[in-house]
Amino acid sequence: MPAPGGARRSPAVVALGGGHGLAASLSALRHVTDRLTAVVTVADDGGSSGRLRRELGVLPPGDLRMALSALCDDGEWGRTWRDVLQHRFDTDGSLHEHATGNLLITTLWQLLGDPVTGLDWVARLLGARGRVLPMAAVPLDIEADVLGLDAADPDAAVPVRGQVAVATTTGRVAGVRLVPEDPPVHEDVLQAIEEADWIVLGPGSWFTSVLPHLLVPALADALHRARARRCVTLNLAAQPGETDGFSAEAHLEVLAAHAPDLHLDAVLADPVAVEDPMSLSRVAGSLGARLLLRQVSLGDGTPRHDALRLAAAYRDVFSSTFSDVREDR
Amino acid sequence: MPAPGGARRSPAVVALGGGHGLAASLSALRHVTDRLTAVVTVADDGGSSGRLRRELGVLPPGDLRMALSALCDDGEWGRTWRDVLQHRFDTDGSLHEHATGNLLITTLWQLLGDPVTGLDWVARLLGARGRVLPMAAVPLDIEADVLGLDAADPDAAVPVRGQVAVATTTGRVAGVRLVPEDPPVHEDVLQAIEEADWIVLGPGSWFTSVLPHLLVPALADALHRARARRCVTLNLAAQPGETDGFSAEAHLEVLAAHAPDLHLDAVLADPVAVEDPMSLSRVAGSLGARLLLRQVSLGDGTPRHDALRLAAAYRDVFSSTFSDVREDR
Repeated sequence: MPAPGGARRSPAVVALGGGHGLAASLSALRHVTDRLTAVVTVADDGGSSGRLRRELGVLPPGDLRMALSALCDDGEWGRTWRDVLQHRFDTDGSLHEHATGNLLITTLWQLLGDPVTGLDWVARLLGARGRVLPMAAVPLDIEADVLGLDAADPDAAVPVRGQVAVATTTGRVAGVRLVPEDPPVHEDVLQAIEEADWIVLGPGSWFTSVLPHLLVPALADALHRARARRCVTLNLAAQPGETDGFSAEAHLEVLAAHAPDLHLDAVLADPVAVEDPMSLSRVAGSLGARLLLRQVSLGDGTPRHDALRLAAAYRDVFSSTFSDVREDR
Repeated sequence: MPAPGGARRSPAVVALGGGHGLAASLSALRHVTDRLTAVVTVADDGGSSGRLRRELGVLPPGDLRMALSALCDDGEWGRTWRDVLQHRFDTDGSLHEHATGNLLITTLWQLLGDPVTGLDWVARLLGARGRVLPMAAVPLDIEADVLGLDAADPDAAVPVRGQVAVATTTGRVAGVRLVPEDPPVHEDVLQAIEEADWIVLGPGSWFTSVLPHLLVPALADALHRARARRCVTLNLAAQPGETDGFSAEAHLEVLAAHAPDLHLDAVLADPVAVEDPMSLSRVAGSLGARLLLRQVSLGDGTPRHDALRLAAAYRDVFSSTFSDVREDR
């Protein structure tokens, strides 16, 4: 324990994910630590990101942009540039739906020649409360085995390729893999994971934003070896298409199926999304984790996280074990 | 005269123009004053600016972007964001040739609802050494009477519409007008002109970047009423198309034809661009101005200005009369 009144460093936290789910965890985590790194999926192939990826061969910037925006300084400067990054053109022409931040990030990548350096410049612009890194140094494609798409044989696994196609499939996703299978990972990502006190997976699109990190060999290896504690944050609702009809337990089981040796320390869930707490607690326990049930939703009936409630829940998660972890060293 | 060793404020300078010409004068003027305002043409209808203007109905941002870039802070921060602003996409797709700064400026306009506020935010981003304002609050079109286009009647004036069409016409431009004829002008433009010690016109595309300021009634009125001294900087070469075959004197005469009552104080020209110095001096004198001949070109045979030589020339222009002007007050 630190001396009463003594300063204690906040935990080093690495948050994994993509899209709105990662933005939600970052919007919360910024309140409980000033040592925060986001490691973001780069498999998007839709919308503005997909077009930039195809037109310019760059990493899809959208999820990285959203993560940076979630970390912006909350003064006028940071909020204004965040709004610039998040702005989408609404036209009858070719700029329609492009996000300005995607164009800005792409420009920095082309100018500076390195994705991480470019993202660090955007972070400086925003006065960001943390660092945002891509999970791989090259664009990825997600390929899923989907059941129920072949009318003649509903049990046949049909391969479906691309994040958008997988996230919106009408079938049942049985598993996912990445193309290429073994992409390079930036050294700063591996170092952040190695130095982390806590690794946070989820919330987010389970197959297309949360699991992909476990499928990159270099990243999965670092996540398994890390001395950090690991927290999985479950979603507030199943996602139409991707995880239609999945229980909270099923989310954990799918994660375990993709990373059987990954030890977890905490599973954070909102009671509204848990049908059978005892059952979920058992599954969490089988992976090594304590279950923490906390209201982390806005509570307005929509499946959206409340940044402050989620922050308080993460503080509970971290404080319950964090002082032990510190004493190990 | 100020007391020996006493601090003297640098002159308040308003530079009028557009495109590369204005960028050249700003790159020089930033060395001789810290009270600098650029008032920039908004009549471009070509390239990235023209596409944004048509697709989104905004002011053409390109000349404003170039002016801001010329004023960027010269540390790593300012230079990097300048390079981002000046970056052009090079693709086989719809982003080809768009300048990132044009997209950024357009975004700020859409977000903040006011062109001047948006430009001030870009200036803050760049740590700009001055302010950049649009000459009118609405997009303008340039329409020229061009001689020599009608084979049957070479003396007939044929109307040619649009900055690109006028700048590249194969005929001889006899005069220009603006559409709309009486556009609104932002109050900050009029105030900067009212408070200026020096107003600098040119260098730049004569009919499409320099003269248009004199054709906006509210702006022309302010330029005529201003207590400031007025300096015209002549081009280093005639421009193929627009001013093909124009002598230095012809440039001044065309300017006088479009603003017969405008008193000038100084005409700055490079000897390489002046065939008959005595003749030019006479024409300058007839408009009230002293002629200053200085090498302001790079001297490599190309018609490009040297920022430091041009800065030294402006210092000479301003110092020859500036102390008198200050003593008036």
